[in-house]
Amino acid sequence: MEPNQINSRLFCLIFAFLSISGIDSSLGEYLYTTQWLEVPVDHFGFANNDTFKLRYLKNDTYATEPNAAAILFYTGNEGDIELFAQNTGFMWDAVSDRNNGLNAELIFAEHRYYGQSLPYGNKSYDSAKQLGYLSSEQALADFASILQEINPGNRRPVIAIGGSYGGMLAAWFRMKYPHMVLGAIAASAPVLQFKDITPCGVYNRILTSVFANAYSKDCSENIRKSWKILKTRAETDDGRAFLKRQFNLCANLTKHEDVDQLLDYLTEMYSNLAMANYPYEANFLAPLPANPVREFCWRFKGDNLNDTQLIQSLASAVIVYSNFTGRVKCLDINETATDRLGTRGWDFQACTEMVMPMCSNGVKDMFEPEDWDFKKYSDECFKKLGVRPRTEVEMITRYGGNQINTATNIVFSNGLLDPWSGAGVLRTPNNRVKIVIIPEGAHHIDLRAKNNNDPQSVIMARQIHLDTIKEWISQRYGA
Amino acid sequence: MEPNQINSRLFCLIFAFLSISGIDSSLGEYLYTTQWLEVPVDHFGFANNDTFKLRYLKNDTYATEPNAAAILFYTGNEGDIELFAQNTGFMWDAVSDRNNGLNAELIFAEHRYYGQSLPYGNKSYDSAKQLGYLSSEQALADFASILQEINPGNRRPVIAIGGSYGGMLAAWFRMKYPHMVLGAIAASAPVLQFKDITPCGVYNRILTSVFANAYSKDCSENIRKSWKILKTRAETDDGRAFLKRQFNLCANLTKHEDVDQLLDYLTEMYSNLAMANYPYEANFLAPLPANPVREFCWRFKGDNLNDTQLIQSLASAVIVYSNFTGRVKCLDINETATDRLGTRGWDFQACTEMVMPMCSNGVKDMFEPEDWDFKKYSDECFKKLGVRPRTEVEMITRYGGNQINTATNIVFSNGLLDPWSGAGVLRTPNNRVKIVIIPEGAHHIDLRAKNNNDPQSVIMARQIHLDTIKEWISQRYGA
Repeated sequence: MEPNQINSRLFCLIFAFLSISGIDSSLGEYLYTTQWLEVPVDHFGFANNDTFKLRYLKNDTYATEPNAAAILFYTGNEGDIELFAQNTGFMWDAVSDRNNGLNAELIFAEHRYYGQSLPYGNKSYDSAKQLGYLSSEQALADFASILQEINPGNRRPVIAIGGSYGGMLAAWFRMKYPHMVLGAIAASAPVLQFKDITPCGVYNRILTSVFANAYSKDCSENIRKSWKILKTRAETDDGRAFLKRQFNLCANLTKHEDVDQLLDYLTEMYSNLAMANYPYEANFLAPLPANPVREFCWRFKGDNLNDTQLIQSLASAVIVYSNFTGRVKCLDINETATDRLGTRGWDFQACTEMVMPMCSNGVKDMFEPEDWDFKKYSDECFKKLGVRPRTEVEMITRYGGNQINTATNIVFSNGLLDPWSGAGVLRTPNNRVKIVIIPEGAHHIDLRAKNNNDPQSVIMARQIHLDTIKEWISQRYGA
Repeated sequence: MEPNQINSRLFCLIFAFLSISGIDSSLGEYLYTTQWLEVPVDHFGFANNDTFKLRYLKNDTYATEPNAAAILFYTGNEGDIELFAQNTGFMWDAVSDRNNGLNAELIFAEHRYYGQSLPYGNKSYDSAKQLGYLSSEQALADFASILQEINPGNRRPVIAIGGSYGGMLAAWFRMKYPHMVLGAIAASAPVLQFKDITPCGVYNRILTSVFANAYSKDCSENIRKSWKILKTRAETDDGRAFLKRQFNLCANLTKHEDVDQLLDYLTEMYSNLAMANYPYEANFLAPLPANPVREFCWRFKGDNLNDTQLIQSLASAVIVYSNFTGRVKCLDINETATDRLGTRGWDFQACTEMVMPMCSNGVKDMFEPEDWDFKKYSDECFKKLGVRPRTEVEMITRYGGNQINTATNIVFSNGLLDPWSGAGVLRTPNNRVKIVIIPEGAHHIDLRAKNNNDPQSVIMARQIHLDTIKEWISQRYGA
């Protein structure tokens, strides 16, 4: 693991949704109207009375009895809300089933500072003075403002739905605004990825086990070996030229930072392959085959490779991720899969309140040893963005960490193939919070549209979501 | 009722605590250490990274097993926290009973912008730029920061306790931070005094009934008649001189505003007498006798008074409130009882998020008819403070209004002699929220120290509080 933890690790959450997005989104499979609501830049104070227009998408095609219809409310995460609307097929499937569909309106609410919901337009990212109103609490208050607008008096039942960071927001929205939100489906929401709750190495251990179990154990072993071999090769001109050829890099590896960048690229790739390890071909920003980790590991097998063979084998496997279409001319390690989304926004969030400790030890995981070092993390944030986290525990103070025994009407779902699952809620704190474990699931696959290749556990998870939503609604109506 | 609704009505909440404070407070009956915690000015964003020192008071004399001790946490309201510490005798009584006392530490947390917890020192009130971080949400986040500091990992059970606005904060603290707050005693907390929940006239109706029932019905009838008579007299020079003599005013009534000020003074007096209508003498900022409303009404009796008699009789009754000690030389109608507390702060809160609709109709209450007019209210706010409420429903959006059926571990207590009781929670939303009605109680008398003249219903209320706190704590420990 290379030092740029902010990038290499916390991007993962951003990518999380990309994993379910894909190029399909731009085709606009689902239709909605775009709405705007004027909201305060600062919901919790009055020193800054600026307002801005927040975007949300709406579809009421399937709200057959509008006054009685429920609202399925997607709590937007770190990206353009249209991507989420187009790629949360579960919500569309839930209402469009002619026989058994929910009588519900769909709302997809954009998270401030992403997509087109920019408080200060194209100056929103200029400095902390503009960007400083980017926080989860302000985002939740935006969502509450939308509900205040479209559902006055909370007459209609509202179900919050989200995946990844959006799943955290869905759960927190129910916890903090239970008068507005009847229940929440929080898919792959790592609400326990905070200090001293989930061990910092869990993410990388699960990630490692995904690679160890996809084809043969050689795969994770080879990855573990690769870091040192790559670094050694990168020490000489010849070695760097060799790496450039093998990986078909677009640019020469000239500076020390270039090599770091290659290692970061690989690190991010492993996360992304695991999160998006779906049993069917999916169009990502980089399109992937079905079961991409198995495809990768099949190419990276062998327990007896010498250094050169190992690099050659790794390079051939990387193509699964970098060039599945065969149309990419060369590998640009500076191009992350996430550039089209709110990378800068997420960096800021990760460097202010959303501090998620990560580490590796090289024994129980396939990465090089790196302890979690909050001070170092904070220093990197300051160097990169000019901000530091206020504390390491802000999110625990705000949302409770693992002390959520008063929570009700939340479904936490986690796929065991998802490295984030280790920080998900896997045991219910009480009988009003449901836990759904999806043994065959990667990152919030349950929020995707149904697919013929869906494993049985994914189909069941969606059914539980749907049944639970119906149960909450009928309880609310006293049925 | 005169137009300055902000003053005449919403002061009531400020006065609320004065009613239980009294001159005793300055004697320092109870002892504590003063602590300071550095907290962010803005907990929810990063545009302003200023910090300030928040004050809290601590007593652990009675925490006999410090590691197992509970924390009784007073959620400070709009005033100097020392006043609350000295005047919330219930908390001191709860721990100091040798046989049956709680093993608990006492904390009294100051509300930002009051007392000595001034984010920008003596500039804190200079403009909305400094004052704009005064909000209930920021105050709750301050309280959470204190708990994060003194109770890491939430190891010890915490009970929030507060009265009036402090009671609202205690309830909301439990609702918003249930992982930190095991339960809340919310005394006389008008959490339902918001748009379309409690009719705007209820406060004045209860107030009227207190005056109608204290001695004879003449009292409220005479008050109802008095407004027109006072105004008529005030139209002429002779009449104003007459009023000045009768009320022993310090200054002449020269301007129209002076007469308004007299009417506002009386309006505020009626609220204050009712809230502080305790069955024992108490030292207020203006000291009062036991049962002050009865004392007042005894002097303002008679169903057949002519106009002159009525004014004379009223003036003699006002002395109960204005000069019980006999040491006041003349009546200064510009001096409100609340000047020593955070009047300006509360005005700002009332004109930003804490909008509590009030009205009167002159038929079911003893005041002149005045509708609730949000626009007019907002205009007055702007004229007076340069700010307007963002919406009329902000507090409902934030805290749920009457839709609090997910709340647990809260006791809402209300005295039926308290005009604020009409906006209290009088029916439980579920079996985990307790309602305590105190038929013989004025404004949060149950938080006062025990007194030989306490009515039985007050003694019982305190016992319920104590038993409930013990029950929560033993449930938490699985007993």
